[in-house]
Amino acid sequence: MVKIGICGATGYTALELLKILLRHPHAEITVLTSRQEGEPHIGMVHPQLTGRLDLKLENATPASVAGRVDCVFCCLPHAASAEAVKEIMGSGVKVIDFSADYRLDDEASYTQWYGGQHPDPERLGKTAYGLPELFADDIIEADLVANPGCFPTSAILPLAPFLKKGMIDPLDIVIDSKTGVSGAGRTPKLPFHYPECNESISAYNVGRHRHMPEIDQILKRATGAAVECIFTPHLTPMDRGILSTIYARPTSPVTEEQLLETLRDFYRDAPFVRVVNHLPATKDVSGTNFCDITARLVRGRIVLISSIDNLIKGASGAAVQNFNLLYGFPETCAL
Amino acid sequence: MVKIGICGATGYTALELLKILLRHPHAEITVLTSRQEGEPHIGMVHPQLTGRLDLKLENATPASVAGRVDCVFCCLPHAASAEAVKEIMGSGVKVIDFSADYRLDDEASYTQWYGGQHPDPERLGKTAYGLPELFADDIIEADLVANPGCFPTSAILPLAPFLKKGMIDPLDIVIDSKTGVSGAGRTPKLPFHYPECNESISAYNVGRHRHMPEIDQILKRATGAAVECIFTPHLTPMDRGILSTIYARPTSPVTEEQLLETLRDFYRDAPFVRVVNHLPATKDVSGTNFCDITARLVRGRIVLISSIDNLIKGASGAAVQNFNLLYGFPETCAL
Amino acid sequence: MVKIGICGATGYTALELLKILLRHPHAEITVLTSRQEGEPHIGMVHPQLTGRLDLKLENATPASVAGRVDCVFCCLPHAASAEAVKEIMGSGVKVIDFSADYRLDDEASYTQWYGGQHPDPERLGKTAYGLPELFADDIIEADLVANPGCFPTSAILPLAPFLKKGMIDPLDIVIDSKTGVSGAGRTPKLPFHYPECNESISAYNVGRHRHMPEIDQILKRATGAAVECIFTPHLTPMDRGILSTIYARPTSPVTEEQLLETLRDFYRDAPFVRVVNHLPATKDVSGTNFCDITARLVRGRIVLISSIDNLIKGASGAAVQNFNLLYGFPETCAL
Amino acid sequence: MVKIGICGATGYTALELLKILLRHPHAEITVLTSRQEGEPHIGMVHPQLTGRLDLKLENATPASVAGRVDCVFCCLPHAASAEAVKEIMGSGVKVIDFSADYRLDDEASYTQWYGGQHPDPERLGKTAYGLPELFADDIIEADLVANPGCFPTSAILPLAPFLKKGMIDPLDIVIDSKTGVSGAGRTPKLPFHYPECNESISAYNVGRHRHMPEIDQILKRATGAAVECIFTPHLTPMDRGILSTIYARPTSPVTEEQLLETLRDFYRDAPFVRVVNHLPATKDVSGTNFCDITARLVRGRIVLISSIDNLIKGASGAAVQNFNLLYGFPETCAL
Repeated sequence: MVKIGICGATGYTALELLKILLRHPHAEITVLTSRQEGEPHIGMVHPQLTGRLDLKLENATPASVAGRVDCVFCCLPHAASAEAVKEIMGSGVKVIDFSADYRLDDEASYTQWYGGQHPDPERLGKTAYGLPELFADDIIEADLVANPGCFPTSAILPLAPFLKKGMIDPLDIVIDSKTGVSGAGRTPKLPFHYPECNESISAYNVGRHRHMPEIDQILKRATGAAVECIFTPHLTPMDRGILSTIYARPTSPVTEEQLLETLRDFYRDAPFVRVVNHLPATKDVSGTNFCDITARLVRGRIVLISSIDNLIKGASGAAVQNFNLLYGFPETCAL
Repeated sequence: MVKIGICGATGYTALELLKILLRHPHAEITVLTSRQEGEPHIGMVHPQLTGRLDLKLENATPASVAGRVDCVFCCLPHAASAEAVKEIMGSGVKVIDFSADYRLDDEASYTQWYGGQHPDPERLGKTAYGLPELFADDIIEADLVANPGCFPTSAILPLAPFLKKGMIDPLDIVIDSKTGVSGAGRTPKLPFHYPECNESISAYNVGRHRHMPEIDQILKRATGAAVECIFTPHLTPMDRGILSTIYARPTSPVTEEQLLETLRDFYRDAPFVRVVNHLPATKDVSGTNFCDITARLVRGRIVLISSIDNLIKGASGAAVQNFNLLYGFPETCAL
Repeated sequence: MVKIGICGATGYTALELLKILLRHPHAEITVLTSRQEGEPHIGMVHPQLTGRLDLKLENATPASVAGRVDCVFCCLPHAASAEAVKEIMGSGVKVIDFSADYRLDDEASYTQWYGGQHPDPERLGKTAYGLPELFADDIIEADLVANPGCFPTSAILPLAPFLKKGMIDPLDIVIDSKTGVSGAGRTPKLPFHYPECNESISAYNVGRHRHMPEIDQILKRATGAAVECIFTPHLTPMDRGILSTIYARPTSPVTEEQLLETLRDFYRDAPFVRVVNHLPATKDVSGTNFCDITARLVRGRIVLISSIDNLIKGASGAAVQNFNLLYGFPETCAL
Repeated sequence: MVKIGICGATGYTALELLKILLRHPHAEITVLTSRQEGEPHIGMVHPQLTGRLDLKLENATPASVAGRVDCVFCCLPHAASAEAVKEIMGSGVKVIDFSADYRLDDEASYTQWYGGQHPDPERLGKTAYGLPELFADDIIEADLVANPGCFPTSAILPLAPFLKKGMIDPLDIVIDSKTGVSGAGRTPKLPFHYPECNESISAYNVGRHRHMPEIDQILKRATGAAVECIFTPHLTPMDRGILSTIYARPTSPVTEEQLLETLRDFYRDAPFVRVVNHLPATKDVSGTNFCDITARLVRGRIVLISSIDNLIKGASGAAVQNFNLLYGFPETCAL
């Protein structure tokens, strides 16, 4: 059994992670941390877990957690996460980091998009990016995995095969994404107050979302193409799910069947990518680790559509997939 | 034109009030207050009002507001509201108070249910309760109207006719109410964070909701019956609307048709009560000042069902209905 | 491996059943039937199952199904289900019937509430009712299990302990239930068309719902008490979940702590009943086989609140729980 | 008073139309038609109208309607609508047609996109397109107005100013639209069954939606530019609202402020277009006739975002705006 610690266990990604790990035959949830006062029982914070996990939240330091477990899932906010990871690394514990801290290529990008100094800059650009469909070899060797952003997962998976084969123009990519509200986290704020966002859809952070450079850089890392995408996220009145509708320009004439075939070829052995003929809906993948993808050709332009559950394939499911690779368990275990 | 001031103009009831007053031929919205920093334009706080109302929010005192208007709608939290009202009254300005401060009979009730000292106890029990269907005579004479609670409106209207005629047992009344989330106000809190309350229904404040004594006391005031109800509110995943399902025991055998006829008789001249044969849905009254009511007889027990829009008939629509009575406009004006 | 056939595999309960059985270590899904034209692949009907189950829907007779499997889950409409069950029984195959056909005590009740002749009246009143918390002994011995109705499960579990101990008046029980829309099945009809039922709550079938006699009769079977309940279901704008708020009168004075203790005692060994101190929400049990229950005392009246997922504990989860008992697997297997 | 007939009064657009006309000081709703059996009272079909309009639905012919009214709003399905319009025109009655029958330029387009023969081809290309912001002169002169499609309204309004000034490439326009479910009409079908489309977003009719040629042709009519857009609609889990996110390529370098200024200039006198600095949400315009528009510049690409209420500015509000122009009432009357 691999002993597991989760730093920052009060949010939605931690909840989903716990639900998956509870059915994982090789994981033993051992420590949960948070800065909640009074060290409440986890069931007080997540009523869904009542009677299923008998642990209290501890206000423990990363070092103290590292001393008691084999693997840490770090669900802390950015910057706080790198502080914790820096403290843990080297102790022999493996870390899967949910934050954005280790996803970007370099310190300059980090400072530009996240502000402030990176607490642990020397690991930037050298950390495995936890998208097993593209970086399994890196992940297997890693001690630290940067778990991908939810939007990047939904955009990189459909785009990578075409960029790798030079089939689309890397400078003419529009990614129009729609996300459920859980993507905004569990801290109450006005835009996510039910009567504000229910029965409404709106774009946010247009041209300024931090996942835009992540998409560019990871696509370049995976395919060599110098991508510059236009990325627009939209807040959609639903709990979970991301649908990304992607518009790309082919470098030479192509048929819809060739598009689908390219996807099928690329993901032939990927257990969690389903290349489908129908138009995917987020409900089709809700609660699962699947990414459904299809392709259409419209007036000579390529339209790629992908759907994921932002909390599973977009966060905690991917994290367990990475965990399975790190420890040599079957990739689909518990997923 | 009646000059209007609104104290506490940032919430949902104020927004609905503004939308109604904007189409009222005799109302001129003159002052809006809030404690928001920087005195923003009202359109910054309520984007729905962009281009429709050219006023800034002012951090003005109640006295300063009273000096510039004829009528104040007070949308402040309880206690703060009575402080403001106390300051305004006597200046010749009429006040419609959305808070609970003047609804209960006496200071003891107030302290028991709301805590603390009432800032203006001498007006308790002497203030008109703004349910025109039952208290129109009081309202017409009043300078201060206590606008009813949303749940009480949905419960009192169906029950009053039967209590007045002694047709039901006042000590065996169960009120099971379901409300949309806007009833909780606009301040972000975890229970109203979208991913918490969406796709979920739950009871809250069981046996402890402050509208329970309001229902008892107002029903007694209206009908003479010493009511003691069991009241259970439920948070329902929708923006607005209240459905109350009420279970009562007849004092002597009765038919369903007699129940409906009693309601129809009682509300024959009430423009906003619709006694219907079908089972009402909250959607039927959404955005309107109607209260739809029906009755059923089930195994000898009376089941009354009412639906209102909690923000309109349950708050701002009722307030304008009261305003119309206060100033002698047609009761349905702008509604 | 137990070979499984599912008759009527296109609805929501069949979908959830398939998702559970796919992770069941001792179940092999073998035959799926429906009257769909063209015998489509199951993934065409349930896109969620794409790539997870390689079976086509067959327009097969019950007898033909029975010849190929060990256990049939019958998800057909009432009457059609009893026709099928009648045909299957005796062939050595065990049957779990999702319809209401075998839940009531006798033919007269069936005809009164469901209309028409019962196709298989001699099994009425002799079939195990699939609520393992109350009828495990019957179920273990059975060849045919009548899987409970969703509302009855949510009402019987909280009420049974108190009726069994004579703590509440069996003739003064009000059950106010709220259900998600999936409870209405998958056939498109106007009341369940999204813009009709979204953002709205309403009661339906008041005093006429077929689950009312089921609750009465099963509670009598389980506790000996001659129950006559008032049952009101409400259509709630959410996919899934049932919350039942139940009002009962104690036969002698009781405290809230005694109420909770009675529940805890009764369900000490029930793996899927969680007696909780907090007020349960349907989201707490969504996607799980749990029934959360609490109790409150309000002005001397007992208020019981229960929450289940109508498609899991209210249908397919309970069915697999029954399956586990029928075949001697751990009761919680795959749940 | 202008006497009004509505052909096809059972759908959502007719309901919204009725609600607007009920408050219109110069409209008298006189005849309502539908093929509903039994000629039910309108309140039976639209419970929201209970007690507000005392009319029955009649199974009347267009000619019979025309004989009794001054103006017909035709809410029939395509083809059926043109049949009715053809019958009515020439009788002196003015018609506002909600269908797509008179929106396209020519018979060939109609047959390509809608199939079948157009019942009234000679009026194609000569009918006023009811977007007053662009075609007020035509509308004022017209006897027949083709009320615009909902998506086209949301796309044409933001694009027209830039196309007219040659500021964007007419062949590089991507329109990614998100619509509430009421856009699909009131006929129950599986994709719009609540548990199917709730908590899910998906694209539909990718590259094949009939509003794509309408956008192209009307933009050409309004601006002279030979547009060929990529249009992708998405079904969003909400009752109403359309958000269109539009990606266009500038023909020469431009600033964000120039984009906003171009919009402000163009719509300076349009009472229902609000050019806003913030990112519009569909909720901001829900229940109103406004179209909110903003512009952003992202990596040199133009992103335009518009929001409308699909049933108001996208249908019935626009229709009344056209009605006001046709009869010389203030453009904003009742809106």
